[in-house]
Amino acid sequence: MPIRVTVWSEYRHELKHEAVAKVYPTGIHNVLKSGIEEFAGAEVIVRTATLDEPDHGLSDQVLADTDVLTWWGHMSHGDVKDEIAQKVASRVRNGMGLVVLHSGHYAKPFKLLMGTNCHLKWREAAEKERLWVVSPGHPITAGLSSDCIVIEHEEMYGEHFDIPDPDELIFVSWFEGGEVFRSGCVWKRGAGKVFYFRPGHETFPSYYIPEVRRVIANGVRYVAMQGKVQAYRDGSPNIVPSVEPIKAIHVVDESLHKH
Amino acid sequence: MPIRVTVWSEYRHELKHEAVAKVYPTGIHNVLKSGIEEFAGAEVIVRTATLDEPDHGLSDQVLADTDVLTWWGHMSHGDVKDEIAQKVASRVRNGMGLVVLHSGHYAKPFKLLMGTNCHLKWREAAEKERLWVVSPGHPITAGLSSDCIVIEHEEMYGEHFDIPDPDELIFVSWFEGGEVFRSGCVWKRGAGKVFYFRPGHETFPSYYIPEVRRVIANGVRYVAMQGKVQAYRDGSPNIVPSVEPIKAIHVVDESLHKH
Amino acid sequence: MPIRVTVWSEYRHELKHEAVAKVYPTGIHNVLKSGIEEFAGAEVIVRTATLDEPDHGLSDQVLADTDVLTWWGHMSHGDVKDEIAQKVASRVRNGMGLVVLHSGHYAKPFKLLMGTNCHLKWREAAEKERLWVVSPGHPITAGLSSDCIVIEHEEMYGEHFDIPDPDELIFVSWFEGGEVFRSGCVWKRGAGKVFYFRPGHETFPSYYIPEVRRVIANGVRYVAMQGKVQAYRDGSPNIVPSVEPIKAIHVVDESLHKH
Amino acid sequence: MPIRVTVWSEYRHELKHEAVAKVYPTGIHNVLKSGIEEFAGAEVIVRTATLDEPDHGLSDQVLADTDVLTWWGHMSHGDVKDEIAQKVASRVRNGMGLVVLHSGHYAKPFKLLMGTNCHLKWREAAEKERLWVVSPGHPITAGLSSDCIVIEHEEMYGEHFDIPDPDELIFVSWFEGGEVFRSGCVWKRGAGKVFYFRPGHETFPSYYIPEVRRVIANGVRYVAMQGKVQAYRDGSPNIVPSVEPIKAIHVVDESLHKH
Repeated sequence: MPIRVTVWSEYRHELKHEAVAKVYPTGIHNVLKSGIEEFAGAEVIVRTATLDEPDHGLSDQVLADTDVLTWWGHMSHGDVKDEIAQKVASRVRNGMGLVVLHSGHYAKPFKLLMGTNCHLKWREAAEKERLWVVSPGHPITAGLSSDCIVIEHEEMYGEHFDIPDPDELIFVSWFEGGEVFRSGCVWKRGAGKVFYFRPGHETFPSYYIPEVRRVIANGVRYVAMQGKVQAYRDGSPNIVPSVEPIKAIHVVDESLHKH
Repeated sequence: MPIRVTVWSEYRHELKHEAVAKVYPTGIHNVLKSGIEEFAGAEVIVRTATLDEPDHGLSDQVLADTDVLTWWGHMSHGDVKDEIAQKVASRVRNGMGLVVLHSGHYAKPFKLLMGTNCHLKWREAAEKERLWVVSPGHPITAGLSSDCIVIEHEEMYGEHFDIPDPDELIFVSWFEGGEVFRSGCVWKRGAGKVFYFRPGHETFPSYYIPEVRRVIANGVRYVAMQGKVQAYRDGSPNIVPSVEPIKAIHVVDESLHKH
Repeated sequence: MPIRVTVWSEYRHELKHEAVAKVYPTGIHNVLKSGIEEFAGAEVIVRTATLDEPDHGLSDQVLADTDVLTWWGHMSHGDVKDEIAQKVASRVRNGMGLVVLHSGHYAKPFKLLMGTNCHLKWREAAEKERLWVVSPGHPITAGLSSDCIVIEHEEMYGEHFDIPDPDELIFVSWFEGGEVFRSGCVWKRGAGKVFYFRPGHETFPSYYIPEVRRVIANGVRYVAMQGKVQAYRDGSPNIVPSVEPIKAIHVVDESLHKH
Repeated sequence: MPIRVTVWSEYRHELKHEAVAKVYPTGIHNVLKSGIEEFAGAEVIVRTATLDEPDHGLSDQVLADTDVLTWWGHMSHGDVKDEIAQKVASRVRNGMGLVVLHSGHYAKPFKLLMGTNCHLKWREAAEKERLWVVSPGHPITAGLSSDCIVIEHEEMYGEHFDIPDPDELIFVSWFEGGEVFRSGCVWKRGAGKVFYFRPGHETFPSYYIPEVRRVIANGVRYVAMQGKVQAYRDGSPNIVPSVEPIKAIHVVDESLHKH
């Protein structure tokens, strides 16, 4: 069964700013969609959703039918409804994969899942970025031709990147202007996985670069839930009777639970 | 300089339920306070705060003057104001230590910092718990007389405990009724540390047990920020000019940032 | 392409001890082989190798042709040649998966890869073990019918298990006699992955239990290198010239490297 | 009680190569000793030991009396006796702290504790290094004046650095020539801690730089065992009788353990 991918994007810069429209005339989401299709091929079915659709294109049905959600946002994080952000986070904990791109570091669902502020340093100077592989053998690096992805012009993101220590660190970036950044990170939350991947400033054509597209497609595969795994239990059940015998059974005072 | 500790507790069970009042007549917070003072001695100055005080006893000034906050809550998590919960989480990211006890697994600040639902299984059956040390040499185990703390009667908490993989796992519990639990866990969030420690159901006298008190006091010491460390940066600054020279300086289109 | 699996086993207990021969008349390795074939089906090609074959059945060619090696040993760890143990460890760092079973915690290749002593507590009392899933959604849990595998009679292994903190903790065991154990752990070493799974004392029929077999087959799949990933670099090259320009080029005093 | 520190160094470059003798006329070890004394003051008692002393200056008595060992080696890793390397690794597992510096990445005790090959890339080009703090609030960063230590001329070390994922990542380096490196890492092994810190090529005066000395002194403090912690158990005991009752007691066939 193919992985059902929903590519979510703000899709506002492209409509408002000529500099962005020139780079992504049909929207960042459609370029990401084509990249995932190019490099994950028959393994995926990809649709898109954007901020200004009803429910941001993320109805309960869409979320239920999504195995992996990718997220690009920048200028309008605040316009994402809290209720939708909570639903996305909840769906991840229940097993949906999430791929967060670039300025999505400040997206509401990402912050909800991290528990940190997700701050960083930044600079728009069209400088060179080198993304070094620090985890050879990792599925997210499949098909890369070398241990370094070079992007000639990108926005800089610098440490300290305010995230929980990643469960897996896959790329570290070098920037021409002197900074470094943990630019490929994976975390588990509940039964779901989150992959953050740094490149993709809206004024640069990073999402047309084959190796960037390949990593995103690999990331989609990696965070997709595999097989019929042991399910996440979304609740805190009272386990009585116990599976093993207990000597001193306590008579619970039910009044304690009438809050 | 001593560690300034604030012991926070709901302090409602003790006033409403006779079964709890019998065990903790002056409130759980005061027993925790005495335990921390007993085992951390001159290293700490401890005060208390409770839910029904103004601002839950956690004014901006109190938070600013607190190096380590301990948290016990159970029946009234929902009554903690979201604003205060956010302030506590923010203060942790800025370096305050947090020790979360027992049913505090569902406390708002803990959930905000974890990014998960923090679900678990439970059973009130006065059963035996054994907390095994899985990290010998860890400062939180200082002074323990053996590698196992035995509590004759406790509430059971069982896996799956829905938390991010802990940065450090220190105790794993065995329960008479057949379950296990990761009962001593540490995470870093921003510049602050969080220690979760399982024991402490309100109807059992666990907080009078010397080894439990000792671990809580050790936990307070461990999550306290030590020395004049490199500070947390609470923001995302634009770094211009760069610290190293950049060949192709990009002229930023300022209109992109007028949202 | 199928995963090429080599199932390695000491195969001495079965020949020397009637109690073991009764449980595993054709050897533990053949029962493991059939379990992996049963639950990983067409995805694997499985062969076996044992201690008393030439080179312990692990010639350079066999190792080169192995994607995943599983290891069971107990009474004769010391008879494994250091040279072979080093080759196995090296092959793991270069990308081979390794599944270490039960008393393999003391196997030479496992200790070489862990860097610890791998001590534990033990007791042979035919007691009940419950392996609880602490990582729902993990591929190694695929197909399990519940969040607990119950084994009626096993040897006990107890904490502290002297291993590096696992990169992933998947199972924690409860034992009837009062102990707990981190019984399903994954680590990365170089480009390879190691999965340790606890059950399998030679006098108990644990490797006939469907859920145990299933987990081992899942583990084989999980540690198999997926796709054409970024390769491990087995060496420390001198990188001249640099990929980016350097202002002050240092003339290296070559005499420093004539040791 | 002060931390008893032993600063170990090869002390051969300084005697053989004029370029090194000019920078470290009394030996690297004495400069490290003075740095630790300068920044850890009354908290430490520091002695030195070198390769060409009997037992490399690391007799059983010296190791037993050492709380923290620091290690610098480069040209003569192979001359360190395997027996001594094993003793050092064993002492770490039993609780001694270890601070490994620069080319010590290939030191025998470090490799024994890591379980990996510890490969990296390198280049001697007197290029600029920037060590960025990625873990604000960490005790190892205490007293640093900014989030970046700048070294004007250093040897380059580049990724992939072949180490197990560190338990804590504290510094990441940027190099003028285009590489990055995880340059401050902590691991736990048994009851002991290991801190790897990158700077310190023998032809550059890095160990005179105040911020480098400060980090090393902080590292010494951090890996020192604190308080009377729960001890490491160096063995695998048979636990009979069990701490909890077992229904079906198995009569162990003792013949199985006569190997």
